[in-house]
Amino acid sequence: MAGKIGLNVMQFDLPHRCREEEVVIEEILRLNEGFSCSWSFFLHLPLSPFSPKVRNAIKPQKDVDGVSDLNVGRVVLGGSETWLCLTYAPLVGKMAVLLGLEGHLKNDKIFILGWSNPLIVCLSVCLSFFQILDSDVVVFLETGHKGLPPTWLRPGVAVINLSSALMEEQPDSWEHRAEAESSAGVGPLSAVLRMQHVVRSSRRWIQEQQYQPWRLRPFKLQPLSPVDIEISRAQTPKPISQLAQEIGLLPAELEAYGNTKAKVHLSLLNRLQHQPNGKYVLVAGITPTPLGEGKSTVTIGLVQALSAHLKLNSFACLRQPSQGPTFGVKGGAAGGGYAQVIPMEEFNLHLTGDIHAITAANNLVAAAIDARILHEATQSDRALYSRLVPSVNGVRCFSPIQMARLQRLGINKSDPSDLTPEEIRAFVRLDLDPEKVTWQRVVDTNDRFLRKITVGQANTEKGHARQTQFDIAVASEIMAILALTDGLGDMRARLGRMVVGSSRNGQPITADDLGVTGALAVLMKDAIKPTLMQTLEGTPVFVHAGPFANIAHGNSSVLADKLALKLVGEEGYVVTEAGFGADIGMEKFFNIKCRTSGLTPDVVVLVATVRALKMHGGGPNVTAGVPLPKEYINENLQLVADGCSNLKKQIQITHLFGVPVIVALNVFKTDTQAEIDMVCRIAEASGASAAVQCHHWSRGGRGSVELAHAVKKVASQKNHFQFLYNLQDSIVEKIRTIAQKVYGADDIELSPEAQAKIDYYNQQGFSALPICMAKTHLSLSHMPEKKGVPTGFILPIRDIRASIGAGFIYPLVGTMSTMPGLPTRPCFYDIDLDPVTEEIKGLF
Amino acid sequence: MAGKIGLNVMQFDLPHRCREEEVVIEEILRLNEGFSCSWSFFLHLPLSPFSPKVRNAIKPQKDVDGVSDLNVGRVVLGGSETWLCLTYAPLVGKMAVLLGLEGHLKNDKIFILGWSNPLIVCLSVCLSFFQILDSDVVVFLETGHKGLPPTWLRPGVAVINLSSALMEEQPDSWEHRAEAESSAGVGPLSAVLRMQHVVRSSRRWIQEQQYQPWRLRPFKLQPLSPVDIEISRAQTPKPISQLAQEIGLLPAELEAYGNTKAKVHLSLLNRLQHQPNGKYVLVAGITPTPLGEGKSTVTIGLVQALSAHLKLNSFACLRQPSQGPTFGVKGGAAGGGYAQVIPMEEFNLHLTGDIHAITAANNLVAAAIDARILHEATQSDRALYSRLVPSVNGVRCFSPIQMARLQRLGINKSDPSDLTPEEIRAFVRLDLDPEKVTWQRVVDTNDRFLRKITVGQANTEKGHARQTQFDIAVASEIMAILALTDGLGDMRARLGRMVVGSSRNGQPITADDLGVTGALAVLMKDAIKPTLMQTLEGTPVFVHAGPFANIAHGNSSVLADKLALKLVGEEGYVVTEAGFGADIGMEKFFNIKCRTSGLTPDVVVLVATVRALKMHGGGPNVTAGVPLPKEYINENLQLVADGCSNLKKQIQITHLFGVPVIVALNVFKTDTQAEIDMVCRIAEASGASAAVQCHHWSRGGRGSVELAHAVKKVASQKNHFQFLYNLQDSIVEKIRTIAQKVYGADDIELSPEAQAKIDYYNQQGFSALPICMAKTHLSLSHMPEKKGVPTGFILPIRDIRASIGAGFIYPLVGTMSTMPGLPTRPCFYDIDLDPVTEEIKGLF
Repeated sequence: MAGKIGLNVMQFDLPHRCREEEVVIEEILRLNEGFSCSWSFFLHLPLSPFSPKVRNAIKPQKDVDGVSDLNVGRVVLGGSETWLCLTYAPLVGKMAVLLGLEGHLKNDKIFILGWSNPLIVCLSVCLSFFQILDSDVVVFLETGHKGLPPTWLRPGVAVINLSSALMEEQPDSWEHRAEAESSAGVGPLSAVLRMQHVVRSSRRWIQEQQYQPWRLRPFKLQPLSPVDIEISRAQTPKPISQLAQEIGLLPAELEAYGNTKAKVHLSLLNRLQHQPNGKYVLVAGITPTPLGEGKSTVTIGLVQALSAHLKLNSFACLRQPSQGPTFGVKGGAAGGGYAQVIPMEEFNLHLTGDIHAITAANNLVAAAIDARILHEATQSDRALYSRLVPSVNGVRCFSPIQMARLQRLGINKSDPSDLTPEEIRAFVRLDLDPEKVTWQRVVDTNDRFLRKITVGQANTEKGHARQTQFDIAVASEIMAILALTDGLGDMRARLGRMVVGSSRNGQPITADDLGVTGALAVLMKDAIKPTLMQTLEGTPVFVHAGPFANIAHGNSSVLADKLALKLVGEEGYVVTEAGFGADIGMEKFFNIKCRTSGLTPDVVVLVATVRALKMHGGGPNVTAGVPLPKEYINENLQLVADGCSNLKKQIQITHLFGVPVIVALNVFKTDTQAEIDMVCRIAEASGASAAVQCHHWSRGGRGSVELAHAVKKVASQKNHFQFLYNLQDSIVEKIRTIAQKVYGADDIELSPEAQAKIDYYNQQGFSALPICMAKTHLSLSHMPEKKGVPTGFILPIRDIRASIGAGFIYPLVGTMSTMPGLPTRPCFYDIDLDPVTEEIKGLF
Repeated sequence: MAGKIGLNVMQFDLPHRCREEEVVIEEILRLNEGFSCSWSFFLHLPLSPFSPKVRNAIKPQKDVDGVSDLNVGRVVLGGSETWLCLTYAPLVGKMAVLLGLEGHLKNDKIFILGWSNPLIVCLSVCLSFFQILDSDVVVFLETGHKGLPPTWLRPGVAVINLSSALMEEQPDSWEHRAEAESSAGVGPLSAVLRMQHVVRSSRRWIQEQQYQPWRLRPFKLQPLSPVDIEISRAQTPKPISQLAQEIGLLPAELEAYGNTKAKVHLSLLNRLQHQPNGKYVLVAGITPTPLGEGKSTVTIGLVQALSAHLKLNSFACLRQPSQGPTFGVKGGAAGGGYAQVIPMEEFNLHLTGDIHAITAANNLVAAAIDARILHEATQSDRALYSRLVPSVNGVRCFSPIQMARLQRLGINKSDPSDLTPEEIRAFVRLDLDPEKVTWQRVVDTNDRFLRKITVGQANTEKGHARQTQFDIAVASEIMAILALTDGLGDMRARLGRMVVGSSRNGQPITADDLGVTGALAVLMKDAIKPTLMQTLEGTPVFVHAGPFANIAHGNSSVLADKLALKLVGEEGYVVTEAGFGADIGMEKFFNIKCRTSGLTPDVVVLVATVRALKMHGGGPNVTAGVPLPKEYINENLQLVADGCSNLKKQIQITHLFGVPVIVALNVFKTDTQAEIDMVCRIAEASGASAAVQCHHWSRGGRGSVELAHAVKKVASQKNHFQFLYNLQDSIVEKIRTIAQKVYGADDIELSPEAQAKIDYYNQQGFSALPICMAKTHLSLSHMPEKKGVPTGFILPIRDIRASIGAGFIYPLVGTMSTMPGLPTRPCFYDIDLDPVTEEIKGLF
């Protein structure tokens, strides 16, 4: 029967010990998880183990017979799903009784079946002869009919046998007679019902795999005035599993980390592969003051508006903040006011450990480099070879990663005893030049004393001391890889390709050569999954990867964006943020991130503030920790008008890529209406598709509804996205294109070191990579003090490095620090934990 | 009514917008979490919002009316709980009908109530006049009676009104009449039923708070021969939430980290405070070979035997392994064979991030130290003061941690403008002596090149370079604090007390002085919660803290032990492990950990192997990575007999503390029966309460059943636990006691540095702390090559340090490395991740 309707049925015969309840439950738990997701099952067992524990061990969604408490409740209360639903036409509207209290469910009180429409049946132990005679239908459950005199059935009654019909191929005489007497005898009805249920639950399972509009339950904000710094704490986040369910994630796709954050499995990409992507929105900014202009709050405010107010599926994708600045100067990065990610503490602290994993992986490479240099320097080829390819139980063999190195060396041998002394030498000696090690150690702490250090000064390191440095963890190439990879296989390959230095004869040495690739992939296996959190209004956020935009490519992960684009679906929006000004974060978003991911953006939101525009118009310096000069507090239209040059230039940069731009003016309470109007007017005159003011900080999503409408309108228009340069252009040509078209430089000037590196990379075949400029974020030029739109300058390229694993060349424009420091009074002076309430103070 | 039986009832009037389903659900979700745990509620609402979504928003355990699908299912199927249970005597055995299809549950199909015993009632839309007339009892639901002619009721029928009786203080005329006519009219019955249910669910809640025997569902092992290295992967762990439920944890006490590990809230200690502790079992060992003698596997095998085979509640408490050795030489530490923690990969990798949190906290202190030295060296008192106590919006004030420093300085002022220049100087200048900074940076990587380094060589650090070192993360004092603390408040206080160095005039400088205490507590707030995992047989394990036993105190956390002792209950067992030989790990367990926790051990299991005994008897050197000499493979009774001297000595050490000892011989397949018998015979002759062989590695818990029985027997006997020394003894006296009584030294010899430190600590008032010896684990003496029981030696004390936060003095015996290195071929060569299956290879 099952075969005819295309169902696969498997029968498992349990051994005799299955009369033990515990054994049955163990089997059930195994079946719950076994086979495919659309698998469901029913039990045919002796009566004794059918305890509530056994019944409820079955996952409700796998429960063909609907014997779990939850499923029975659903049927009884007539929820949308009916459990055993029979639409056998001749029975509709008839009166029925159920017989057989010792039924499948072994329930000595009451047992009930829900039927479609008006056929409703019931049974009691004090069943009377009259009631049975009065019935149109008699339903037999399991063994209940044994004691019933056949004469109680009136002629013509329909007898339905729900007992184990499939198993009893030879009905006993009584049953046979009843069927013969009935006008509508239904034999293996229970089998039919079971199959019907399997089909229905499979259909439901398939539907769940499809995209559906979210059943998101946003929080209502009641903004206070003045805005309270306790906002984040005042809003209890919804359980992350609830949010996940609201946005269509399956439980198996979620790994909770506590109750407010969870990692999402990449298998989602596979499940939703046929789902069209949503609209892709980038939030960038004008050249900022050192205080930042609120791109994160705009991003969060925008998704709050889209999701909670316009009721459109939307996701924010944010970078994970480095703990260094959190405890140093800057504080957290969870947004602010009524546009933030909650719980803000979790966002700003360890989160799900991704940066720690990066640190561990990065430093394992560093330890491997120095240890290898030492071991090579202190051992003969033979000793190295016998240690690298040891005899284990008398057998020597190469590990897979060693085989790969042999192949790169052109040695096509797999038996360690076959190598010639020259081949052994080539194999065992990476011959790393200590002067040319480019790999640095990292910590996620603002530790300025690690900017330049000497390592290896202990006697055990036998004089192999060398000078090196620590970078902040987010500057690690592994962070860039995490942000750009599209899956485990790709990540593993990129980790292996990372160049850590070069040999004395100029060959690049990679993580693969060190034999450490697999361990790095293992350390990063959880970090590759984006972390789901929520905004203050209960809408979803991915937090994943956090390279800085000045010294790295400054964008959150490709994977988070891809997952989010599938989850929001065709009518939805994914809002992602690029670090610092559009000249660096956005340029890298387009030329590096979009090129890698293959995704094309629909609209750019360019964040401006009156404060930053005044600075560009010639206002005094803005410094963190110092009160703002009066120019920034009082109306000054001239400064604003002059400063809009920077805004205009950033709009033009966006247009270079063929993407429409909306200017979002992040309004502060000191801004005057005249200033606001002026900015919007100039923005639109400069080519912005729209220019709107945003009040998300003080009002949450409600304060960004106008922006959300603008985004919706502009994103629906077709655009003509294009890259700024071709990968096949020469390295110099690519750098010059960025310098001239984006920064407004007259030309570039290469230092001799930079020129030598270009020659080297050309020779190594690394020239077709995109460019990741390391440049100050405080000016369009390389000179932080030059505000507005600097012109007439030559961009100096001090040096050039390559992140081969991440896949870009990065020219250094001037001196960029890769390790922040702690000020005299770091933020941590105000951070504390109440040991009783467990409340965190001072972290924002 | 409620008041009379001691119930608190609160009524919430929802606003009119509550006709919207979403608003109602939001309120329900709020009520689900609100107030105390024993709070439950019911809804009285207009009919329209009573959708299945609304009903099922109520947590089943809060659902007074039992309207959620799950609760209805439970009632219908007659599980142990009956939903609305009426034992109103006159009604028992009567026939009843229910009226009112538009009832509370707004179900147009069927509605049912379960009653105690044989009173069972039902209702159908095609209810006939006859059926009603035939009934003894008629139950009215909500509004169903409106259309029923009163004449349908026969005289004397009992009418039960389950409609909103409480709300309708003036029954309408029809109802009034029916009640008047009935002989057993029950008025506000629904109120009674609700209260009865509240009482019952509260009782159930209280019962859940009490200790109950576990309903643990252990896995059945089917050990293979030979033992397969894929064992761990072959066993699918149970969901960690299921294990938590089995051992009596409440869902709110668990924070899942993925599906196989979870942090457990410390609030459990409070909930179970009146629960008696279980038995406390310590696993220690004889002096080991460099390969280790299997204490972890004995620990795990023992709990597998106790839990899964003897059916006694039992918990293993293990240390979290450092990632350094995992990728270096040693590999993982999850046990092995059929006695391991699963998933082994999770255990060995980031786990729940505790060591990463320690690293972050430790290095924040280090960064703060160097930055502070630099800032003090480059700024005037005035500049420092204006930065440390800045004017914020025109107001200057001290932060709480600064107020605490003022108090320590004896300055009782709270207004920053009141301080004299001398007081300002004292306040702003820690005046740390760079030569006397004792705080080191840490990484959780075997990075030998960080053993001695010079930091601060960049120009930005203005010549303040100094020599320092990195330690492995588990050597951090913060790790020791994590292992010894008893709660958040205590941890915060200990973190603040940590001495990081001394000032130029010899005053100790603490984390409090640096202002960093609160930030450290925040970084450690999750790490303080132990992590729950499971053994291969599905029994519970806590993994928490992991200080090494040679350079630190070598024991897992006090908190994990305390939680476990409450969870197993009076008849249960907690098995915890002390690192390395009993002379160091166990001595510190008693003198430091038990002294701190106040817990007293019931029995010590002393692990021995024939291999290690042969080494002590004069066998050749045992070296990791090199095949074992033949003495260790073939029977050699003489070596075993001679080597038992070490076993005997370790038994004697245990007896110094008044605790009985069981010798567990971890049997290898090369051991002969004669060797095994000899060890057991000598052990018992040396005073062991029992000596048993263990085969957990090849057989799991079944292989340790004999050990489990021995533990059960010996632990039930009263013992006379005592410390080895008094805290009030002088530092020298305490060190000498350990050296002579435990190590067997003739005396100790203090270096001049050590003597100077003792004088300093005495002067600072640190002399009453316990002693944590930093000594090799490879010999009872300080000389690793001296096996067996060395005698006639003087123990040299090279230096003495103090961990004031952790609360011990640690003398350095010889040179102990605090940073392991990577060998020529680290383990990572074999570690890899399959990008498709996500399987990890080579990590064990």
